[in-house]
This record gives sequence, structure tokens and C-alpha cells, in this order.
Amino acid sequence: MLVVQKFGGTSVADLERISSVCDIVSKSVDSGNSVVVVVSAMSGETNKLIGYANELSDNPESFELDMLLSSGERVTASLLSIALNERGVLAESMSGRRAGIVTDATHTRARIESIDPKPLQEALDSGKVVVVAGFQGVNSDGRVTTLGRGGSDLSAVAIAGALRADLCEIYTDVDGIYTTDPRIEPKAKKLDRISYDEMLELASLGAKVLQNRSVELAKKLQINLVTRSSFTDAEGTLITKESNIMEEPLVSGVALDRNQARVSLGGVCDRPGIASDIFGRLAKSSVNIDMIIQTLGVDDKTHLDFTVPINELLDAKPIVESFVNRGEIEEASYDENICKVSIVGVGMKSHTGVAAKAFATMAHENINIMMISTSEIKVSMVIDEKYAELAVRALHGAYELDS
Amino acid sequence: MLVVQKFGGTSVADLERISSVCDIVSKSVDSGNSVVVVVSAMSGETNKLIGYANELSDNPESFELDMLLSSGERVTASLLSIALNERGVLAESMSGRRAGIVTDATHTRARIESIDPKPLQEALDSGKVVVVAGFQGVNSDGRVTTLGRGGSDLSAVAIAGALRADLCEIYTDVDGIYTTDPRIEPKAKKLDRISYDEMLELASLGAKVLQNRSVELAKKLQINLVTRSSFTDAEGTLITKESNIMEEPLVSGVALDRNQARVSLGGVCDRPGIASDIFGRLAKSSVNIDMIIQTLGVDDKTHLDFTVPINELLDAKPIVESFVNRGEIEEASYDENICKVSIVGVGMKSHTGVAAKAFATMAHENINIMMISTSEIKVSMVIDEKYAELAVRALHGAYELDS
Repeated sequence: MLVVQKFGGTSVADLERISSVCDIVSKSVDSGNSVVVVVSAMSGETNKLIGYANELSDNPESFELDMLLSSGERVTASLLSIALNERGVLAESMSGRRAGIVTDATHTRARIESIDPKPLQEALDSGKVVVVAGFQGVNSDGRVTTLGRGGSDLSAVAIAGALRADLCEIYTDVDGIYTTDPRIEPKAKKLDRISYDEMLELASLGAKVLQNRSVELAKKLQINLVTRSSFTDAEGTLITKESNIMEEPLVSGVALDRNQARVSLGGVCDRPGIASDIFGRLAKSSVNIDMIIQTLGVDDKTHLDFTVPINELLDAKPIVESFVNRGEIEEASYDENICKVSIVGVGMKSHTGVAAKAFATMAHENINIMMISTSEIKVSMVIDEKYAELAVRALHGAYELDS
Repeated sequence: MLVVQKFGGTSVADLERISSVCDIVSKSVDSGNSVVVVVSAMSGETNKLIGYANELSDNPESFELDMLLSSGERVTASLLSIALNERGVLAESMSGRRAGIVTDATHTRARIESIDPKPLQEALDSGKVVVVAGFQGVNSDGRVTTLGRGGSDLSAVAIAGALRADLCEIYTDVDGIYTTDPRIEPKAKKLDRISYDEMLELASLGAKVLQNRSVELAKKLQINLVTRSSFTDAEGTLITKESNIMEEPLVSGVALDRNQARVSLGGVCDRPGIASDIFGRLAKSSVNIDMIIQTLGVDDKTHLDFTVPINELLDAKPIVESFVNRGEIEEASYDENICKVSIVGVGMKSHTGVAAKAFATMAHENINIMMISTSEIKVSMVIDEKYAELAVRALHGAYELDS
């Protein structure tokens, strides 16, 4: 089997951890696998370098940042390769450049355009484990680029795609995807399998194990992704296509997102295109709108409610206020004390009554639902933040996720 | 004027030091110079990485070490470039690869084979300061290589040669070349100028400011080299060709090398080729022989005395003993408590009595001279180590180097 194994910063935090990674890699090699390893910088390194750059400049050039930040992964790659060779596991490190990873020219958040699998394949064919510095590539101009947050995961998935690997394992300090956050509901259970789409919904809803970009790429390339811990032997969670999941659960997980704020607009003027104006201006300022609800009040006036990430509320306010000042909106209020709880599951597609059960559960706990949005595989509800944990636990129990 | 400025590890040890380097570079730019900067890793970084590698393996692969060690200079180069840009000095960092530095394939101590000046020249032509990561290049296979000890100096000199620069400034924490070690003789004076050949003799004799490889390359390329401190404004020492030095002093400096041991062989058998056998075997084991003296004793037996670096004595002993065991040498003794003092000066070539004065000075101080060797511009004497400082001060005074 051809396996790509990716180890994040905490998994290679020091020489002892690198040694543990050697155990994992050599175990995979011993079981007959061909292995490509993708590594992040040792934890803390990237932040240290960013700290340096920010002390030196308020606005460091992005291509200089890439030159700077790409060094951490190179260090880990060579150290791991040295450690593997010392154990008799033939290994070779490669920079992103050497591994054939070509990106666009968007420094600090480049997109992978292509991977030439030849150098990787040749090294694999000669019986070597290849250790690739993650998070980096080169643009067509030959300059080093980095891939932004979660970049090493992307490197791993893209390499798995280029090599048509059987499996891409993402090792972190978390042992898989859970039915909900175990810190909120201790009865939360680790999922054996989950579909790409469910994972995408869970990640965007606040389950921070994998970045959406990696899951999207894995879905596109149809790569079987496993997320597991490098600190334990426990099996992780397989993220795969829906057809690989035998028994589709109604609901796979309950996600919580505390990072939302609600904007409520009352008395929105009745001019055609007013909503498009408001949301157009917000989009232009890079404010991400999540849920939108438009209602006609008893007073015959239009109400518009929407949610934005809390840290974008500051950007959103002046835009909204400009409409208020122009008299096109009568009143605007902002509420940061909300949260969004969601249930996610591919089984919803073919079953009815899933959403109704969620609403009933909320009602039973006397939790007022402020906003609702649904997709094929998800029901999201905005509620008062103080009920966050209660709602998660109640839903987790209602869908019997602890059994 | 086109200037190459090289800053060593202590000169870029932290962000404050990097800021001081900015002062020096921008001052040079302000005075109308085109500037290429070559930087080492922040002090301590390279040793930290080597420490990691050695903890992971007794024998790390040399190309992995190069991948590992080349990262430190990249970090400094981008940080310095960021700092320069922040001050409005247009700058761009380049890895050894990007700066066109091609080496042979001898990982960890590669030799520079060629430099394509085009990328550097283009950046300079566009009005930028180019900050090059020192100590590194790529081999013809595209792999990163490093140049070994003093590698960043070599990068600087080679770049100066490729660009036909007017000056190559080597910034360290020492403000120039002194007539002798000021810790031994406080009256030691900084030299304004010194010839390449004198510098080569002084360096190989223990004045550790510049590595011989860099001076040799500067001599070959006829690059005016200045060594000076990044911690003070003081003018440094110009190392240049002899014809640029107006008044040639008889003696430029007194050097001390404590790092030698003496091997004395008594009763060496009279077989033809015996010396060649002994020194051939030693050379094969990479033992560096410095001085050799062969004498015919009163007992009609041949004595052979030679010096080796102290840290190679362990390798030399078993080889010597094998000849003793075979009966080809009657007795061997080893003395680590010796040192070598030397006087160096291009003026010796055209003046007589320079060596005689050295011997007279030793005699006056009652210091026994065990071995003597001379070249056109140098007289070296091996003496008991306990007289080291006394000999240095006496010679320094005898040649009036303090005036």
C-alpha cells in the first residue's frame, strides 16, 4: 500500500517526538507499505519566526515571509530523515521544490497548481521513505511559496493525489473526529468513518481538527483521509466518500460554533436591490455572512437578520450604520452573545423528521431558537450563548450519539 | 562603488543586532554604493541544529545535514531584507540557489564551482540591496550544499569576484587584524593593511579572524578584503595585494599556535623510504603534519621530529607505534606541552637578519627553541608551552610592533 503520513507541529515538537514519529513510520514500512512523510515545522518555530518578522516590520513583504517561514519544515524534514536512516529505514528529505510542488504566485497563501510525481516516485522506487517539507512549494518564477494555514495538510493530500496513494494519514494530537466536543459532552464517541461532506460541515462549524481546504481537496481527488493521533496507537477516523460508509447514521455529530455574532436590522426600506446593496458592500469588505433570515414583521416592515464571525463584526458595523444614517434601515442591533449549534449527518438526506427532533429537543430544554438554517446534511440553530453546552448535550443524547 | 558586505553570526545574533546591520548597510547605500549583503545564521542556530542531528544519529547523511544547516542563513537573509525594506532601503533576499551559486557535490564542505552573476546583477540594477544567504549553494543535481567552516566568508568573496566588486567587507566581532593577540600583549596594534600572503600565514598560525580558504580565494580573485567589526565604527584591516602596500614592514605580526603536539622518533632505521612510509601512512589517516626535522644524532642514529595538531595525535599514535613494534623505530615520545610562535612579514624577503633577531630574542629570554621552520615571509619556532606568552611579548617588542 502507498501511504502518505503527515505529522503536525506538536507531533514533531522535539527530538523525542521525532523519535516517536520514527516508530510510526517504520511500523508502516515494516508492514510492507511505501511511505511518503510530510512534516510541519517543530511547534513554536513558525510563530517564533513570524514574531521576529513582525518586530522588524509592520508589513513584511510576503515573498520574504515565505523565504523565512519555509525554513522550519525543511529543518524537520532533514531531522526526521536523519533519524529514520539511523534506524536503518532508508530515507531522504525533500524540500517542496524538490518534491515537484508548483504553486501559483500568491505568497503566504499560495494554491498548489501541480505536482510532478517523478522525483517522489523515483525515490519510492529505490526503496526509500521520502520526507517532504510541508506547507511549501515554488511558483513558476522559482520562488519559494507557502500555502497558508493548514498548508502541510494540503501538501499531504495533494501528494497523495499525485501519487494515487491508497491512504493519507494526518497525525495530530487529537485521535480523531468525535460526535461532539468531548470537553462539553464527556460521552462523545470517536467516529470510525465520516463522509467528506459531513467533515466539511463539521469543520466549518467549529470542529478544528482539519482545515476545510484539505478536506475539499481530498474529496476532489477522492483520497481516503485518516485523522489520528501520533501520541497513541488508537485507530483514527477515516474520512472517505459516502459510498464507502456502510451504515449511514442519521446524525454523525453535533458541532458548536461560538465564534458568531448576530446583526439584526429592523425597518429595512422596501427599495428593490436593498439586500443586494447591503450584502454586496459587506462582501466587498471581506465580511463573511453565514446565515440570513428575512421576515415581514406584524408592522409590515421588513426585518433582516444575519450572522457574521465575531472578529469581522467591527468591519461590518460601519457599513450597516451607513445605511442607518441614510435612513434605509430604521434600526440596527448587534448581539455577540449567541452561538450556533448544528447537527450533521448524511443520513438526513433520506430520512424525515431529523430537523423536527432537533427543534423539539430545544423546546424541551426551553431554549429559544433565534435563527435556523438547513442544508441536505445539516441543521443549524442560532441560540443564546449561555445555553451552548446544554444544547450540545441535549442534542447528543437525543440522537443517541453516545451509544 | 560596488561593495559586498558579509555579516557573521554574532553580527546578526538577535533582532537588535540585525537592526545595527541595517544601519551599516543603509549608510553604505546612502554614500552611493551598490551593496550585496551576505549573512550567516544567527549565532547559536547552526550549533543547535548540529546538536539535534548528532542526538538523532552518530553519522547523519551529509546531504541531510546540508538541507538542515542551510536553513539558518535563509532565515537571517529574509529577516534582514524585511528590516531593510521597513527602513525604506529596497532589498530582496536570495538563497544560495537563487543567487546562482553552483558548487561541486561534496556535501557539508562543497567548493564553489561557478556563480551566475545575472540574478544578482539584475536585482542590483533595479536599485535593490541583495541579501544573500551565505554558506550555501546547489550542486549540479539541484541539491542544496553547504561550504563548511567559514563558508559565508567564501560566499562573500566569491560573489565579490563574480560581480567584480570593488570591496568585500567581512564584519565580525573583532575590529581587524592585530600585530598579535591583544589578550597576550596589550600593546598589540591594529594593522591598517596586510598582504594576502601575510594574512594566510597569520591565519594558519592561529589568528582566527578569517579562514584561509577565503583569503586564498580573495588572493586568487584579487578582491580587496576588509575585516572589521559590526559593533564599532572603527576602520578595519585591508587585506590586499602586496603592491598595494606602500611601506612593507619587516614583520607585520606575531602569531601563536597552542594547538600543536610534537612527536619525537629516536633510532629510526636506515632503510630507504622509511620516512615516506611513516608520513604516507599518517597522511592516509588524514593526520596533518606541520614541521618536520630530521637529524643524525651523535649515536649515528637518525632522529625524526614532527608536529601534528593536538586533536590528531590520537590518530597518529597507533600508526607510529606500529613502526615501533616492527622495530623500525627504537623509541617514540609525544609532547603536548609545546606551542609554535611565528613572526610574519613580507619585508623579510628583502631584508636579512630578521630570523637571527628572533633567535637572539629567544636566547635573551632563555627560551629553548626545539624546532625551527622558515618560509619566505615567516619564521616559526616550536618552544615549551609555558613560555608562550613571554615569547610573544618579547618578539612583539623586538620588532617594535607596538610603535
